Amino acid sequence: MLILDGLPDRPLNGKTPLRVAKKPNLDKIAEISVNGIMDTIAPGIRPGSDTSHLALLGYDPYKFYTGRGPIEALGVGLELKPGDVAFRANFATVDGEGSIFDKVVVDRRAGRIADTEDLVRALNEISLPIEFKVAKATGHRAAVVFRGLFTDFVTDTDPKFVGEKVKRCKSDRAEVAEIINEFMQKAHEVLEKHWVNELRAKNGLKKANAILLRGAGVMKEVPSFKERFGLKLKVISATALIKGVGKLVGGEVFTPPGATGNKETNLNAKISSAIKSLDSSDVVLLHIKAFDEFGHDKDFEGKVGFVEKLDVHLSSLLELDFSETCLIVTSDHSTPVKVGDHTADPVVISIAHEDVRRDEVTTFDEFSATKGGLCRIRGMDVLNIAFDLLDVAKKFGA
Amino acid sequence: MLILDGLPDRPLNGKTPLRVAKKPNLDKIAEISVNGIMDTIAPGIRPGSDTSHLALLGYDPYKFYTGRGPIEALGVGLELKPGDVAFRANFATVDGEGSIFDKVVVDRRAGRIADTEDLVRALNEISLPIEFKVAKATGHRAAVVFRGLFTDFVTDTDPKFVGEKVKRCKSDRAEVAEIINEFMQKAHEVLEKHWVNELRAKNGLKKANAILLRGAGVMKEVPSFKERFGLKLKVISATALIKGVGKLVGGEVFTPPGATGNKETNLNAKISSAIKSLDSSDVVLLHIKAFDEFGHDKDFEGKVGFVEKLDVHLSSLLELDFSETCLIVTSDHSTPVKVGDHTADPVVISIAHEDVRRDEVTTFDEFSATKGGLCRIRGMDVLNIAFDLLDVAKKFGA
Repeated sequence: MLILDGLPDRPLNGKTPLRVAKKPNLDKIAEISVNGIMDTIAPGIRPGSDTSHLALLGYDPYKFYTGRGPIEALGVGLELKPGDVAFRANFATVDGEGSIFDKVVVDRRAGRIADTEDLVRALNEISLPIEFKVAKATGHRAAVVFRGLFTDFVTDTDPKFVGEKVKRCKSDRAEVAEIINEFMQKAHEVLEKHWVNELRAKNGLKKANAILLRGAGVMKEVPSFKERFGLKLKVISATALIKGVGKLVGGEVFTPPGATGNKETNLNAKISSAIKSLDSSDVVLLHIKAFDEFGHDKDFEGKVGFVEKLDVHLSSLLELDFSETCLIVTSDHSTPVKVGDHTADPVVISIAHEDVRRDEVTTFDEFSATKGGLCRIRGMDVLNIAFDLLDVAKKFGA
Repeated sequence: MLILDGLPDRPLNGKTPLRVAKKPNLDKIAEISVNGIMDTIAPGIRPGSDTSHLALLGYDPYKFYTGRGPIEALGVGLELKPGDVAFRANFATVDGEGSIFDKVVVDRRAGRIADTEDLVRALNEISLPIEFKVAKATGHRAAVVFRGLFTDFVTDTDPKFVGEKVKRCKSDRAEVAEIINEFMQKAHEVLEKHWVNELRAKNGLKKANAILLRGAGVMKEVPSFKERFGLKLKVISATALIKGVGKLVGGEVFTPPGATGNKETNLNAKISSAIKSLDSSDVVLLHIKAFDEFGHDKDFEGKVGFVEKLDVHLSSLLELDFSETCLIVTSDHSTPVKVGDHTADPVVISIAHEDVRRDEVTTFDEFSATKGGLCRIRGMDVLNIAFDLLDVAKKFGA
């Protein structure tokens, strides 16, 4: 399953990047496939990349979505158990007198600090009444998990805007909020006087003297992919959020060397790795992120160029043995360049296998796909269709 | 959202009214739209106009439908609270000895009595152990609400056939049935000796000496449209049932002067009113009823003629600013002239907005629509799709 993150678009002067790009291999995939359009969640529902990937892996996001914190935390390598409260976090700069909650956020990225290893180590030495763990993520980002805090409601401490005070965590369980607020205060004290920050101050750089928590979520009991389908899943991605979804459903997660999650990524390494993984895994999800970034950046030509760049590498997918392999090419959502964010416009989907009822679609784009033999399906349907084609589906009834 | 009630049809000699009618404006709307077919509830489920309008407004009818009584009662202007038991009602003529439940229905419409104002006033003066209210509806019709009777099960008193005895109301709560049956008896006594009926008897007209209750339903807790979507809804209709749906979801309800809910309606007033309402409302539902009546009357030519009559007035819709307005033209259900009643044949839907992925459909009819870019959607999807296009949708996930 090749996921072209955010690739589908809305027409600008009747054109979309997929309509403009030269992409003989993608078109060839459409030609040997049954094609259609797909609502990864439901018509009109704007998907996140996390909720849509859950659906594409057969997990109802309305049932299994934990919020972003736990998924990002899993994605950067933290272990989570049901009941753990997890957050995404930013190193930030705060200023003022009194406790952390009296201070004002001056920079939500602490001058885009990147070398946070020593700060993270210091945070992990804080003493709290419960187990917790901080992990470094890219740049000024981190993830924090608080073990076993079972709660129905817990809020962020990130005020989201510069110039505002750090927020107190709230929860339906007072002790949960207390522990997290204790962490906030102690983290501030540890960071404020840390040698890294003293050095930064000397060099005129902003201190990373606070950590702001956001994307609050509680880890759920999620049955593993292996338990549910009896099949081995591998997720290939360089994006923490997608790796987190892979971990959440108990899949193997792999980032090939040179895979970056952006337009500089090593496409060859990702595709080779995916093909090779078919030997040892039953379901391989290969995630290519850059289209979504071009969408967010409102860069039409960037999307076109990256489609063409990727297409060159797709010839190897056409050499798969379609008598025993099912190739699905689709997206998790549209990220139209006009909007610069995810929309609910249906995505394109092509399913190649020897036994599909091929249609007359010969180009991979948003318009041609509507004439395909799949008509309009949903994200939760995809793996079931593949399992049926591959004869690993069970009969419901007699 | 323009709802052409019951317009879609089944082919007669390969033709439907939409295929025969000359309708350049409707076709032009299809041309600038993304088109498709739609099951307002689900494939094969025959929709009522009430359940389908609920779905079109984003309310799952399986969850929020109250039965017809409360919706009609709301539609004729009664105020309802959760737990109220409401009925549609007919003034009728009964004959025989004993209590109302010993008597036989002679005419379910009391000789099509229309001037019922004084009778309704008299009914509202009856003394019951609980609060209740009777409201006049068109012709021999009325609506009755009994306040705060919270019950899971309550039955009609209308036997539905002439020559049968008036039925006793039954309920899972004995006191509920007792109160309603007490109303039935007292209403009969008040009506029997009312001066209007004495006058009618003198003039050889049938007495409106009973009121028959049907469409029994209990008002539910329904979150308002504003609460759910943060948007202001206006429903423009002359039909009590549709106005009732609008009220049920907390919308503003308006009947323009000259709007009648039938083929004599003032189309110009309705369409002008809808366009004008876009200034002060976020979502405007304009309901045009007459197609459904032609369907019930099995009048193919009548449907064709009314399509052509309406089409003349639709040019103003084409002048909307589609960069900030989304126009949806569809129906609540099919009412094929061959059947003379609602069927589950999917309806035609066209969604016009600057950013839609336009398809090659250039005529608004049941056959062309199947080739459109929407493929096949459901009634509950419609507003979500519009909210996505208009950028008022929220992302689910990250």
